[in-house]
Amino acid sequence: MKAQRVLLVLAALAVAAGIVRTLACGVGHSAGSDAAKGASLSSGEEDQYYAFLSGGRSGSVFVAGIPSGRLIREIPVFEPRAAYGYASNEGDPRRDELRSSGGLWGDTHQPALSETGGACDGRYLFIDDLANARLGRVRLDTFETDRIARIPNLQGAHGIAVVPPDTRYIVVNGEFEQPTDGAADSPEPYTSVVAFVDPETMETKFEVRVPGNAVMADASRDGRFVFSTISNLEQGRDSISMMQFDRDAVAAIDVPAAEKAAISGKASVRNGVPVLELADSAGVLTLIPVPKNPQGINVTPDGRYAIAAGRLSPTVTVIDARTLQIVAEPEVGPGPLATTFDDRGNAYTSLYVGSEIVEWNIARAVRGASDYVVGRVPVHYNVGSLQATRDASAHPRGEYLLALNTSSKDRYLPVGPETPQNFELIDISGEQMKMLGSFPTLPEPQGVELVAARILAPKVRQTLEPPPDAVQAGHELVVRTGPRSVTVQMTAIHSVFTPDHFEVREGDRVTFRLTNVETMRDRIHGFGLPDHDLHVSLPPGATRTITIDAGRPGVYWYYCTHFCGVLHPEMRGRMIVHPQNAMVALSDWRPAPR
Amino acid sequence: MKAQRVLLVLAALAVAAGIVRTLACGVGHSAGSDAAKGASLSSGEEDQYYAFLSGGRSGSVFVAGIPSGRLIREIPVFEPRAAYGYASNEGDPRRDELRSSGGLWGDTHQPALSETGGACDGRYLFIDDLANARLGRVRLDTFETDRIARIPNLQGAHGIAVVPPDTRYIVVNGEFEQPTDGAADSPEPYTSVVAFVDPETMETKFEVRVPGNAVMADASRDGRFVFSTISNLEQGRDSISMMQFDRDAVAAIDVPAAEKAAISGKASVRNGVPVLELADSAGVLTLIPVPKNPQGINVTPDGRYAIAAGRLSPTVTVIDARTLQIVAEPEVGPGPLATTFDDRGNAYTSLYVGSEIVEWNIARAVRGASDYVVGRVPVHYNVGSLQATRDASAHPRGEYLLALNTSSKDRYLPVGPETPQNFELIDISGEQMKMLGSFPTLPEPQGVELVAARILAPKVRQTLEPPPDAVQAGHELVVRTGPRSVTVQMTAIHSVFTPDHFEVREGDRVTFRLTNVETMRDRIHGFGLPDHDLHVSLPPGATRTITIDAGRPGVYWYYCTHFCGVLHPEMRGRMIVHPQNAMVALSDWRPAPR
Repeated sequence: MKAQRVLLVLAALAVAAGIVRTLACGVGHSAGSDAAKGASLSSGEEDQYYAFLSGGRSGSVFVAGIPSGRLIREIPVFEPRAAYGYASNEGDPRRDELRSSGGLWGDTHQPALSETGGACDGRYLFIDDLANARLGRVRLDTFETDRIARIPNLQGAHGIAVVPPDTRYIVVNGEFEQPTDGAADSPEPYTSVVAFVDPETMETKFEVRVPGNAVMADASRDGRFVFSTISNLEQGRDSISMMQFDRDAVAAIDVPAAEKAAISGKASVRNGVPVLELADSAGVLTLIPVPKNPQGINVTPDGRYAIAAGRLSPTVTVIDARTLQIVAEPEVGPGPLATTFDDRGNAYTSLYVGSEIVEWNIARAVRGASDYVVGRVPVHYNVGSLQATRDASAHPRGEYLLALNTSSKDRYLPVGPETPQNFELIDISGEQMKMLGSFPTLPEPQGVELVAARILAPKVRQTLEPPPDAVQAGHELVVRTGPRSVTVQMTAIHSVFTPDHFEVREGDRVTFRLTNVETMRDRIHGFGLPDHDLHVSLPPGATRTITIDAGRPGVYWYYCTHFCGVLHPEMRGRMIVHPQNAMVALSDWRPAPR
Repeated sequence: MKAQRVLLVLAALAVAAGIVRTLACGVGHSAGSDAAKGASLSSGEEDQYYAFLSGGRSGSVFVAGIPSGRLIREIPVFEPRAAYGYASNEGDPRRDELRSSGGLWGDTHQPALSETGGACDGRYLFIDDLANARLGRVRLDTFETDRIARIPNLQGAHGIAVVPPDTRYIVVNGEFEQPTDGAADSPEPYTSVVAFVDPETMETKFEVRVPGNAVMADASRDGRFVFSTISNLEQGRDSISMMQFDRDAVAAIDVPAAEKAAISGKASVRNGVPVLELADSAGVLTLIPVPKNPQGINVTPDGRYAIAAGRLSPTVTVIDARTLQIVAEPEVGPGPLATTFDDRGNAYTSLYVGSEIVEWNIARAVRGASDYVVGRVPVHYNVGSLQATRDASAHPRGEYLLALNTSSKDRYLPVGPETPQNFELIDISGEQMKMLGSFPTLPEPQGVELVAARILAPKVRQTLEPPPDAVQAGHELVVRTGPRSVTVQMTAIHSVFTPDHFEVREGDRVTFRLTNVETMRDRIHGFGLPDHDLHVSLPPGATRTITIDAGRPGVYWYYCTHFCGVLHPEMRGRMIVHPQNAMVALSDWRPAPR
């Protein structure tokens, strides 16, 4: 094995330098008998950053460690996932919430992190659903979705942004323009809205109408302006017609002015939301003409500029974020889609068509110097979004850059007609960018946010506080609550469910109230029930309630679905379902006094 | 950035050795201006192996490249996944199949690869569902699930095995013992069955009853015997009672004898399946007593031995696979769960309690030598299953070993109460095992199969052959097929859906027949329709049909959900739903002649 020998040589050199432990990313860092130790990370050597990648049509968020690129978690948001016990059982309130807000599928695009005082506070991750005009909120102490909100009057929720400094609003852009009066056969022009959502109540407070469709969004550092790229000013109804104009626009919305207008009764109210119409938005909405079907809009960390990426123009447009004047329009290469920043005044723009990242100096571009391009690095392939490490939008760190590539072509083993998506990690700490590695991902990251581990990791909870109505050990119960209903209050602790059996009759409705009474980290238990399409996941301290039909007569072994210990195979119990006319005692059950 | 400098030094050394291109696994192999090139894999340097990891309660299979450890695909099997257009829309036949066979959730445990002539043929991957007694079959040319079969008379489908040499059967073990007569209130002892399933028709041909519960399975190389570990001979109904006996058993089923007995009418027929009962299984079923609540049973590549792992005994039991005699019972360490093999006569056993892999020499153990243990390597933590690289069960390759660890504890950044699962890669090509790296995984691999890329990769299809009834470009159609029904025959090609709009009325049923007419690899398109819970994924050449309710009046932009090209944002069209009483022309539509 040639590769193995080569790895050994390399690893031996690495060990000589005493640095093997910082390198364990996967294969290849073995060194004689110390290999096992050397290739492992200890707890003090964890990744520096969390990356939250939207999952696109997976409807979820993927969490990776950076710089290792390891996928460490999927957070389901708009689609049920039984593995996490998320919205997967009929009767689960979260399933009902998904269904009533738009459906059991979603298309996540842009993540955004909550901020306090202009710094990431590690409280929430917000994520949109392009398919069904929704905004999801993920708690970052538990990595679980806790709210889903429908945005009225809007189709195609795409770009989102946090309005600084204290997450005053989450801005959500509508990409799919609609008849302004909402009537299907309206002769009116199609328009869209930018929605301002309260991050706590998740209510849409007001909306600002824009011509064409609103794509990506960012906010000025002082919270004064929200910027949205606007496409299809042509009012095109088909692919070709949408590309006629050489310039579309960036919409700059004056947030205090919009608030004032919305409150003052100037707005029309549609579906309960004040909408500031085009005719009434003087002093609120400014359209800045930029080329052409623009995509990304990104505000520099210092707040001086908003930079629009041309998509169908090889240029980016630099807009003064205070005067709203265009101050430069440098050429960067074919298919610019988004821009991110380091802490040294440089911008990095993704070039979809050129399959590369271009680094350019903002100050040089603004003063018209010809040497504004600092460097280029090829990516594999067709990069969409990108993001450099930062603690918050105003605090770039200038260490790494993630490029989200839409295709990997021949980079990985073939896995059917669809090749994996592919993100790449680039070192931006030096004079020139350096490609560090490639990571296949599940479909399909459309956007990414980063937060330093030192900010977020201390806030993450390892066990949950049992709620007041949790089932307590010794107080388990099977009780017949009606002629056709039974309640089972059950606890789980390795390797026993209590009760470990109970009897019901065909036709009964069975309500489980389950508590994981473990107090140790990572002692998760699952509750799977054969042939009842029922799976519950229970972190330590968690309580879940679910009601099912008893089903056909038989013996059903409920069992733990997490490999929880050496006695895991014994962690099971029986729900015995008797025929309706069976002559059996079906008395209540309580545990023996301890 | 100290880490960066260190990486640079290491990478420079690597470049000097001319080997950077073989090492790109993730972070860390940059080298000056050649970094981007150096850290990337070219197509000739892909992974050597595919690893198929069961997804446990995710209901799916995860595919990783080895040795890079990259996650390159999820294959949904027992749970819908909109991202892959798998069973996620109401009315999808695969969704109906899932629902009728046991539900929209599953718990995948053991994968098995089809073989021809004793060698992996790259046709099928089989995977079981512990929750709902199902067997799924995945086509390996497309990496898609093509069949789901319910196994009658069985609960808790756990261990599975392929009967060599030509995949005569897929064996499926029932882990959750049942009243033998199937009656909930039966006084009879609980027993279980081992099912023999036809790999083509997916029918259960016959079953062999076993006392207790059947856990893991393997088959002898000549196809003569199927071996299953049997636990709970105690007839225990709770965790403690299941651990009373010092020995449970390995069941050896004589396959030709079982076939003969099943055909001869000796079997009772239950739910349409011949079941060979305990009373009639003389000459078919042999119970070999082994300690204690045994887990894995694994046949050596040469077919001489079947090795049972003791779980609650620190021993493995070596059984002569022809005479069925126990020939050795070496002590290996606490909590042995499974065993795998290299090509040099060594066995590797996972120790759950000891959190290590123990390598031991089979011949030395059999002849009673005291120095049978070759080495040990710690894993992180609590390893369950494991698998060494092999081309097929009879052809070990002795290169790498994958350890599936059930906990990662402090190895990765915290992501809520549940820590990631963790598989580790160990080099077994040398005198001593060497730990190469750790990889977090999504929940929860319970078993893994490996196949060499050179065998499988050439069989994988990149585009699909359009079926005879595919929609052809130029023959798209919108046609009213009844007073309340409309059919839309649509094609997709970058960046246009044809038709790009159509009109229906509230109350209409709309049938989409969609074909992706691209002929290029990786030109996947998706079809998402806002507010209709509808997502379809279309590889090149694929055709899908789906029927929905038109829904409320409005303009709904269907759009491509794969980032398919620079004009991807323009790849959308309108379904206009008029009110029921609207006065609008709703005529048929055909494309203009080209």
